[in-house]
Amino acid sequence: MGDVIKLENHLEQPENGADDTPVERRRQNVARSARRAPPNAKYLDLVNTTAKSAVLSEDALEAVHQASLTILEEIGMDIILPEARERMRAAGADVTPGTDRVRFDRGLIMALMAHVPSTFTMHARNPVRNVEIGGDNLVFAQIASAPFVADRDGGRRAGNQEDFRKLVKLAQCYDIIHTTGGYPVEPVDIHASIRHLDCLSDMVKLTDKVFHVYSLGRQRNLDGIEIARIGRGISMEQMEREPSLFTIVNTSSPLRLDGPMLQGIIEMSARNQVVVVTPFTLAGAMAPVTIAGAIVQQNAEALAGIAFTQMVRKGAPVMYGGFTSNIDMKTGAPAFGTPEYMKAVIAGGQLARKYNIPYRTSNTNASNTLDAQAAYESAFSLWALTQGGGNFIMHSAGWSEGGLTASFEKFILDVDMLQMVAEYLTPLDVGTDALGIEAVRDVGPGGHFFGTPHTLARYETAFYSPILSDWRNFEAWTEAGRPTTYDHANRVFKEKLDTYEKPPLDPDIEDELDAFVARRKEEGGVPTDS
Amino acid sequence: MGDVIKLENHLEQPENGADDTPVERRRQNVARSARRAPPNAKYLDLVNTTAKSAVLSEDALEAVHQASLTILEEIGMDIILPEARERMRAAGADVTPGTDRVRFDRGLIMALMAHVPSTFTMHARNPVRNVEIGGDNLVFAQIASAPFVADRDGGRRAGNQEDFRKLVKLAQCYDIIHTTGGYPVEPVDIHASIRHLDCLSDMVKLTDKVFHVYSLGRQRNLDGIEIARIGRGISMEQMEREPSLFTIVNTSSPLRLDGPMLQGIIEMSARNQVVVVTPFTLAGAMAPVTIAGAIVQQNAEALAGIAFTQMVRKGAPVMYGGFTSNIDMKTGAPAFGTPEYMKAVIAGGQLARKYNIPYRTSNTNASNTLDAQAAYESAFSLWALTQGGGNFIMHSAGWSEGGLTASFEKFILDVDMLQMVAEYLTPLDVGTDALGIEAVRDVGPGGHFFGTPHTLARYETAFYSPILSDWRNFEAWTEAGRPTTYDHANRVFKEKLDTYEKPPLDPDIEDELDAFVARRKEEGGVPTDS
Repeated sequence: MGDVIKLENHLEQPENGADDTPVERRRQNVARSARRAPPNAKYLDLVNTTAKSAVLSEDALEAVHQASLTILEEIGMDIILPEARERMRAAGADVTPGTDRVRFDRGLIMALMAHVPSTFTMHARNPVRNVEIGGDNLVFAQIASAPFVADRDGGRRAGNQEDFRKLVKLAQCYDIIHTTGGYPVEPVDIHASIRHLDCLSDMVKLTDKVFHVYSLGRQRNLDGIEIARIGRGISMEQMEREPSLFTIVNTSSPLRLDGPMLQGIIEMSARNQVVVVTPFTLAGAMAPVTIAGAIVQQNAEALAGIAFTQMVRKGAPVMYGGFTSNIDMKTGAPAFGTPEYMKAVIAGGQLARKYNIPYRTSNTNASNTLDAQAAYESAFSLWALTQGGGNFIMHSAGWSEGGLTASFEKFILDVDMLQMVAEYLTPLDVGTDALGIEAVRDVGPGGHFFGTPHTLARYETAFYSPILSDWRNFEAWTEAGRPTTYDHANRVFKEKLDTYEKPPLDPDIEDELDAFVARRKEEGGVPTDS
Repeated sequence: MGDVIKLENHLEQPENGADDTPVERRRQNVARSARRAPPNAKYLDLVNTTAKSAVLSEDALEAVHQASLTILEEIGMDIILPEARERMRAAGADVTPGTDRVRFDRGLIMALMAHVPSTFTMHARNPVRNVEIGGDNLVFAQIASAPFVADRDGGRRAGNQEDFRKLVKLAQCYDIIHTTGGYPVEPVDIHASIRHLDCLSDMVKLTDKVFHVYSLGRQRNLDGIEIARIGRGISMEQMEREPSLFTIVNTSSPLRLDGPMLQGIIEMSARNQVVVVTPFTLAGAMAPVTIAGAIVQQNAEALAGIAFTQMVRKGAPVMYGGFTSNIDMKTGAPAFGTPEYMKAVIAGGQLARKYNIPYRTSNTNASNTLDAQAAYESAFSLWALTQGGGNFIMHSAGWSEGGLTASFEKFILDVDMLQMVAEYLTPLDVGTDALGIEAVRDVGPGGHFFGTPHTLARYETAFYSPILSDWRNFEAWTEAGRPTTYDHANRVFKEKLDTYEKPPLDPDIEDELDAFVARRKEEGGVPTDS
């Protein structure tokens, strides 16, 4: 734990990176390059004003809410970290001595929920990439945490640094991918003790977007915070004013929060960084087999985790995460993008809006390949998360095989589908010219609109031009060898990678980042089991 | 035209099939077998109570409405049938002498729209298959009118009777397919003069569901009405009280209604049968390149057609059809299931609800095969038509290649997706047992829900069991040869066809039907060009 104390001192000492001259200079450099939008950026600030759907009546919503509070009061959670239990006891929770069990009075939970901010900004090192979280904002994050990676040429293989970097570069290539979401694939060829240093350093260098740090032990959080701070070229004080890094905190459902996750909340919330509390409540496995029951449990676990962030620091930015789905009752395998998943996503949105807290959900599917199933399960997920008012969408692009594999082709398919959702959410032009009475008058009955001035003035931008959809007629498509979406996606991801450009980074920042990573590697990184 | 008069006399003479004893007997037989639901029927009466989406503000909706009325007043429509123009003139429309042009005062249109019924029942020969049209009801009709048919084994081929019959049988096999929708594929191996006799006779014999008659000349409508009447074993008077047959009336966009379509309205509406007025307004081709403009034109054409049904018979059942999509501006090819299509579908729903008239839309895609594109374009269509409040969904299952091909595999894929939509729309159980507090208490923190009483009591029916989704893990899926959705659909459609059972039909009805078809064939069917 020596490293921890050292880094905490480092963070707290202004002479080591807070308000000293180099940082001030960098801040000016950043300001000069600020709001430098990428060329053709179209999807940077998405807003979803569509009326949100409901699967719970007002009464049912209240019943779910009360049932989850009853669970927290009567059953409680196992909190696997003495420091966290002590903080909870101090805040008024009922800790059973000599056990991990903590029970929470419903009044305590709701008093803490009242401090949660309803919206906040996550700050990227390029301010153009800042993302607004909450309200009607819709932010897409790349796939995270797949152990495997696949493309059609290379097949399915264990995660590795080369593919990690390619996937991160692809995320940089598309403005519809607003943030990365963690490691798109776990690069197991980098030793676990220093993996976070290499990976987060890559995040800063290969992208200019907001990124994520894993809560797998206190030191990783602290290293991540420092890397994000260096990347932005700001002081720790500014970092605390401007949340710049996020972490996913999963409960160990049912009703347990493990030590590293609790440490993640403590380190991140204390520094006003973003925590996304996401129970993983598969109905029939880690949660009741009924979707309503799974949602009740999801809500109990989410409220406990969110309340804990506010015990650590009132007003700390936090999101309500939902990941409830069902399992295949024949095999026990998780299922995604199902009707049950859709209902759970919508219900989660209703709960998040009830608490006035940003809502995190996901673009999921369980297909093993890029076939129709991959598309319909993802499309149904997108339907539900759009209608459910999802604010921050994890695994937006690249998720395959229920999250076990990051697929290059699926990444492109998802980008195309996300862009279609964005286009659908774009307001319809209903100005006089758009209503087109004069265009109709010019053409008249029995005519056609090809080549009319009204058409010529608009045809290049009138409609979304998809990346993958093949609209050639059957004969032309046959002559081209009958390519499928999979074929097109396989071609496109390679073409797109060839266009990748490293986003500009102040050389001083890069030097400081390299020096930090080198020093932390010399220190041995973080302790691991292997 | 001799046939027409003969049939009309026939229809009007009670001794030829109205209230005579055989019909009465048949009616009792029908009553005895009434409401005989097929085994495991789950999706017969779908209701979509989800809050509907909007892409037009109230002001914009009014602007679209007024713009379309301005078009009808100032530009008008070409009405290519003297009898129709005469009826319109008599009803108060402004017919320009010596031309086809008819202009409609906005007051006239809206006065006629006031007579349109907001809901009605379409009656099948098996009352279990009756469908409620309008309100929150959601009815799925099979693909119609494809010139080609395809499965993976046999490839793409011209429509033919054998495939026609197979597709109709498949429609009978699934209760989520509420009606057929026309000929799922055009059987060009049957001569056009008698095709409608063979095909509609097949509809009665191979299914017990509501069916469609093409408006391709007056006599076909009359033959269709008679076949539907015989199939139901009822009198013409009862048939007029109980709409049992529907026809699609497409405008020839822009702003033209052709003779056969107008005849279809005259014959069908006069007998209180169902007319579905559907402009085919591809933005950038037959309509303005702006979606708002295409919707204005769609609305003008739909209002003209619908108003004409009410000139023929006030209160006649009619639907507002929308088919607005965009074209691929690179090639001019129609595009479907696009963001623009989604907006058009939602806008059409807003207009139909404004007029309080049932809304017909479609499940579309433009893919040439059963790949991801086929799935995402269809899923986006389903999203829009569900959120847009579609009541009657044409081309729900089997539509491939922008409607040029009826695909057996796509039929199964669509059935699966439709069932998922139906499951999504099923109310969530939020009873005390479903909320699951006791189930959570029994398991407690750190446990699991496999094998608990709460799970065991529900697991077999808790979740939708998809037809095609392959949820096996990667290893098991690899051992099975890595099948895609296309592979599964290819297997399933053949298996399902093997389970087909002809629905019971009163032998007297079958005899009467055969006699009618034989007589009409002897008479030469209908005149054709070839």
